[in-house]
Amino acid sequence: MQIAIDEARYGMKHNHGGPFGAIVVKDGNIISRTHNNVLRTNDPTAHAEILAIREASAILGKFDLSDCEIYTSSEPCPMCLAAIYWARIKTVYYGSDKDDVAAIGFDDSLFYRHIQGETHDMTLKLINTEREECLKLLREWSEKSDKQMY
Amino acid sequence: MQIAIDEARYGMKHNHGGPFGAIVVKDGNIISRTHNNVLRTNDPTAHAEILAIREASAILGKFDLSDCEIYTSSEPCPMCLAAIYWARIKTVYYGSDKDDVAAIGFDDSLFYRHIQGETHDMTLKLINTEREECLKLLREWSEKSDKQMY
Repeated sequence: MQIAIDEARYGMKHNHGGPFGAIVVKDGNIISRTHNNVLRTNDPTAHAEILAIREASAILGKFDLSDCEIYTSSEPCPMCLAAIYWARIKTVYYGSDKDDVAAIGFDDSLFYRHIQGETHDMTLKLINTEREECLKLLREWSEKSDKQMY
Repeated sequence: MQIAIDEARYGMKHNHGGPFGAIVVKDGNIISRTHNNVLRTNDPTAHAEILAIREASAILGKFDLSDCEIYTSSEPCPMCLAAIYWARIKTVYYGSDKDDVAAIGFDDSLFYRHIQGETHDMTLKLINTEREECLKLLREWSEKSDKQMY
């Protein structure tokens, strides 16, 4: 956890992004260590956990990180939590929680409220005109694939 | 939407990943067009929407894509939806919905059920030993920042 905190502090000091750091660990060894880089890279997806997962996957040469754990200085936002889910990481250690992070302005409860239809600052629209073609595509996949999720 | 579908089909044909494509559009112009690349790149975060957002941000040189819209062949998973949220994209058009995607095995309701505590295949643990240092870090940020969320 201390290393994740050090990453967060480094990122904050150099104005790379928010004060968040993360490391991916396998068998007690650090595979990747990163921090939020949204500002530095102009990439809204460059949260610490996303970058740590991407780097660990690149190093290990696989997208399935089920033999890894992740340590993050703050409880993951929904994007990062879902990324951890897709990476099949089973254990997440964090140093401060959602409420702590919301208290300094990173309030991801807004996102969850949005999903539940309580806020309407984002609009999701099903386009019906190509629906049949989209369904055909999914059926083709279904017939072809081993049905892993990724 | 047709272009997003074409991307999805291309990716499926070449075994780059799941049958999903996305484009980011600004003022009627396509900024980026991508498809799921999880298999090709061994990156569990390489969903179509994430890649489209990353590419659009790189091209436009900013992480705030509030002047853009996104078209995606299927309703975004939680990771991608949250990425869209962080990118401040306000309108999402999709060609098939969550239930269609779940029917071929990409069941992200598992993730939502996990968040709600109904499944326990992922463990989140608050590490208390460094909690005070984490909180100090967040307070420092709070004093320094203009409190944008990213």
